[in-house]
Amino acid sequence: MTASRLVWGRKDGAFVRRPDELAVEEPLELRLSTHTPPRTMTLTMRTPGHDFELVAGWLLAEGVIDTPAAIGAIRYCTDPDLDGEQRYNVVTVDLKIAPGREVGRLMLTSSSCGICGSASIDALRDLGHPPLAAGGSVAWTTLLGLPEQLAAGQDDFRSTGGLHAAALVSFGGELLVAREDIGRHNAVDKVIGWALLGGRFPLGETILVVSGRTSFEIVQKALRAGISFVAGISAASNLAARLADEEGMTLVGFLRGERCTVYAHPERIAAAG
Amino acid sequence: MTASRLVWGRKDGAFVRRPDELAVEEPLELRLSTHTPPRTMTLTMRTPGHDFELVAGWLLAEGVIDTPAAIGAIRYCTDPDLDGEQRYNVVTVDLKIAPGREVGRLMLTSSSCGICGSASIDALRDLGHPPLAAGGSVAWTTLLGLPEQLAAGQDDFRSTGGLHAAALVSFGGELLVAREDIGRHNAVDKVIGWALLGGRFPLGETILVVSGRTSFEIVQKALRAGISFVAGISAASNLAARLADEEGMTLVGFLRGERCTVYAHPERIAAAG
Repeated sequence: MTASRLVWGRKDGAFVRRPDELAVEEPLELRLSTHTPPRTMTLTMRTPGHDFELVAGWLLAEGVIDTPAAIGAIRYCTDPDLDGEQRYNVVTVDLKIAPGREVGRLMLTSSSCGICGSASIDALRDLGHPPLAAGGSVAWTTLLGLPEQLAAGQDDFRSTGGLHAAALVSFGGELLVAREDIGRHNAVDKVIGWALLGGRFPLGETILVVSGRTSFEIVQKALRAGISFVAGISAASNLAARLADEEGMTLVGFLRGERCTVYAHPERIAAAG
Repeated sequence: MTASRLVWGRKDGAFVRRPDELAVEEPLELRLSTHTPPRTMTLTMRTPGHDFELVAGWLLAEGVIDTPAAIGAIRYCTDPDLDGEQRYNVVTVDLKIAPGREVGRLMLTSSSCGICGSASIDALRDLGHPPLAAGGSVAWTTLLGLPEQLAAGQDDFRSTGGLHAAALVSFGGELLVAREDIGRHNAVDKVIGWALLGGRFPLGETILVVSGRTSFEIVQKALRAGISFVAGISAASNLAARLADEEGMTLVGFLRGERCTVYAHPERIAAAG
C-alpha cells in the first residue's frame, strides 16, 4: 500500500517539489472479545491490508492461540464512535476457547529472574510448537530462486523502497503467498496468518522467506506454525541460529546470487544442481 | 558485538563448514526500582553493549522520564540467583521522581476508542517534547557525507552484515556518537541515551542518522530528545513524514550518493554546495 505525496528532490543544485510514493504506516489495535468490553491486546504500527491475516498470525506467534480452530470470528470494529478510516484500524477477534495466554509476550514478563541470559530461550520457547516435518528437501536451484520469488511479490517495495516482505514457498518451489509490510515481523505474521485462515496449519514442508534480518523472533514465529525451513536474504543473529539448531529447523541467510550461508540443519538442502 | 561460529557455505557444489561471525542478540530486561520488588518495564532483544544508554534512551522515548535528571542510578542486576552472563542482561533503574508513565506505550492502550486512525497520532504525540531548535542549517555537503560517517561507526556490520546503526552528528558535520544494534529502534535509543547520560539534553542542532527505514517511532524518539533533523539512508513512512511536518522537524531519506528525498522542512538544508 502506498501514499502519494509531494516531496523535495534535488535537481540542478536546488530543491524542487516532485511527486513520490511513500510506504503507508498506520496503527492497528487488536481487541479480544473474551472480555466485556473487548480488551485491547496490542497496538502495532503496520501497513494496512491483510489485517485479519496479520491478527491471526500474531495471535499464534504470541501463544494466545495454538491452532486456528480457536478463532471464532475476526471483524473490523463497528463502534459507532469511529469514522470509516478509524474503523479499519481496529480489529476484534472472538475466540472459541479461552486464550492460551492472556497477553502478549512483552507484557508477560514479571520481575522474577530467569528471563535473561540462557534461561530466556527456554522461557520464550515454552510456547511450544507443532512437530516439524522430518522429511522433504529443497533443491539448490529452488533455494537460489527464492529472492526472485520474494521480489515478484513486492509490488509496493518497488514504488516506495520502504517495505519488508515475507513469502511462503513449498519445498517444490511453488510460491504460495507473499505479503509486504513496513514491519518485518508483520509481514511474517501476515503470511502465517494467511496459512492459518486458509486451512494450511501446520505448515509442514514449507519455506518461510524473509527480506530482512532473521532474528530470534522470526524463527520463533516460524516454529509456532510448524515451518521447518527459513531462508533470509540478509543475516541471521546468533540467537536465531541457536534456536533453529536446537529445534531442528533449517536456517539459511545471505541468499544472494549463487551463494548462501546455512546456519542450521543443512540436511534439508539437496546438494545436487 | 559479534559471535564466532561455524556455518555451512557452498564450495565446489558441496556444503562445507567455515568460520563466520554473527550479530549477537540477547534479551535485556529493564526493571524500575520504584516498586518492591523492582518491577519489569520491558524485555527487549538487543545487541549487548551500551546497555545503560539503551535503557536511558528507551525511558525517555516511552515517556517514563522527561529529563535525564529523573534518573538516579542505573545498574546491572545483583541478584545472587543470577550467574555472570545473566546478570548483564538485567538492568535496574532508580528514579529520583515518580515515573511520568508507569508503563511503556504498548501497554498503555486501553479498550477505549481513539487510538486508531488520525486520532492515534495525537494520542501518541501526547508525550510532548522539548522545543526544536528553530535556527541552524546543514550544508548540502555535510548531508551527503552522513552515510559515510554512519558507516565509519559500524564496525560490526562489516563483519556480520546483521546490525543496524544510528549516529548523532552536529549541524556542522562533527560525528558525536555512533551505535549499532540488531534492532534499529535500539540503536536510536542508544545514541539518544548517550546524549542524556552525557549532559547533552535536549539535543538542539543535531542530526540523527539512521541506517534503516524511518518510521513514526523513530521520528517520535528524536522529537522526545529535541532533535530537529533526522536523516535516513532508506525510506521514510507516510506517518513519519506527517509527524515531522507537523512538529517542525526536517526529515530526509534515501540519502545515497548525490541524492536524497526531503520529506519535511527543507529550510534547514543550506542549498549551496
